Amino acid sequence: MDSESLRRIAVVLSRPSHPGNIGAAARAMKTMGFTDLVLVAPRHFPDPDASAMAAGAAGLLGEARVCTSLDAALADRLLAVGFSARGRDLSHPAQSLRDAAASIVDAASQGNVALVFGNETSGLSNQELSRCQRLVCVPANPLYSSLNLAAAVQVACYELATCAGAFAPPPSRPVEPATRDDVEGLLAHLESSALAAGFLDPAKPGRFMERLRRLFARAGLEREEVKLLRGLMGAWDARKKGK
Amino acid sequence: MDSESLRRIAVVLSRPSHPGNIGAAARAMKTMGFTDLVLVAPRHFPDPDASAMAAGAAGLLGEARVCTSLDAALADRLLAVGFSARGRDLSHPAQSLRDAAASIVDAASQGNVALVFGNETSGLSNQELSRCQRLVCVPANPLYSSLNLAAAVQVACYELATCAGAFAPPPSRPVEPATRDDVEGLLAHLESSALAAGFLDPAKPGRFMERLRRLFARAGLEREEVKLLRGLMGAWDARKKGK
Repeated sequence: MDSESLRRIAVVLSRPSHPGNIGAAARAMKTMGFTDLVLVAPRHFPDPDASAMAAGAAGLLGEARVCTSLDAALADRLLAVGFSARGRDLSHPAQSLRDAAASIVDAASQGNVALVFGNETSGLSNQELSRCQRLVCVPANPLYSSLNLAAAVQVACYELATCAGAFAPPPSRPVEPATRDDVEGLLAHLESSALAAGFLDPAKPGRFMERLRRLFARAGLEREEVKLLRGLMGAWDARKKGK
Repeated sequence: MDSESLRRIAVVLSRPSHPGNIGAAARAMKTMGFTDLVLVAPRHFPDPDASAMAAGAAGLLGEARVCTSLDAALADRLLAVGFSARGRDLSHPAQSLRDAAASIVDAASQGNVALVFGNETSGLSNQELSRCQRLVCVPANPLYSSLNLAAAVQVACYELATCAGAFAPPPSRPVEPATRDDVEGLLAHLESSALAAGFLDPAKPGRFMERLRRLFARAGLEREEVKLLRGLMGAWDARKKGK
């Protein structure tokens, strides 16, 4: 799937108290390619704190839909996933975010999905959870499992975007690995240079060459690095001869 | 590995500008079982904004180590992992956080590790990155890849804790699944009730029973649910007879 399906996954914040968290959640969503923010009965919105925390996601925040009830927010959703820090007695069995990710992404390929987050202090009420078909938790420190609301949104969006393979890691500079001949040439140069310097005793070579061979194998030398090392040894050799 | 190894992974914030982000990072760490926060030349610290954002992680914040240079912060580390939103020309190839997680957790089982995050505005400088053996990025929206500093810390700690299997999802109420006999009993009851009600024509049953059988198979009925549905049908049956 491409990142297009992420647009069918709404983040629904139910009864958020702090407008700063709304803005931070909008920013978190945008970094992971999500676009649809829904606010159910926010205490303060719009609000300058929300705009300040949204940073470059002001547009997403400006397009947020505001609903008076969770039922209204979920009306057009095939699947609503409730996020909770703890399991509930009378609800669906909780799944970890990682275990649930693939099936949530799959549902988004078929229709609209909602990720539902509760109030900062009280979380989702049992009534709110009853409107969700699935219950997901972010496994956390049992001694302190209180993720900030926007942090929970960030983790959820990261997990789903990663599961969906939405964004590739930035390409890195292509490197030219050293060939076998490059490495053998370097080893031969090192050996002759070590002999000439009197560091290596031809009668008792020990495991010197074996150790260097293992080190270079582990390092995965690049062609440019081999050139650099041979240049350095060449300068040493010349200096010794000059003495 | 247990969550003990997470204590050997320090989060190093280099030149953080906003004390609120330091506090929020401390909170993010604690939720994922990390304990070791290191600050390199923070602009303002300690600071009331940091304490306010740390919430329940005030203790962790109070124990943060403050260093004047990144070299000092990394002195006792076997591995330093630099976090960057983008690949760099002259650095190590960037790995995605997910791809890198297992080897970072593995390194923490052998010794001290650092996750290094740069300044909010400028990120890690090339000089700072050169002090890291590995470069990791969080794949993000190419149009807006700017994760908040504490949000990046939250995602990194979540990924590593999850990779390490540090915390189990909360156990959910054990449910008693319906046996084959329970489900067959329910289907037989439904069939006889539908016949008695005149909804099902014995001469032309169509695919009624086949559809119900498929629905119940998909739902994965619990024993309690079978009892509830049979109770409801029993009440209907009695009412029909009463008429």
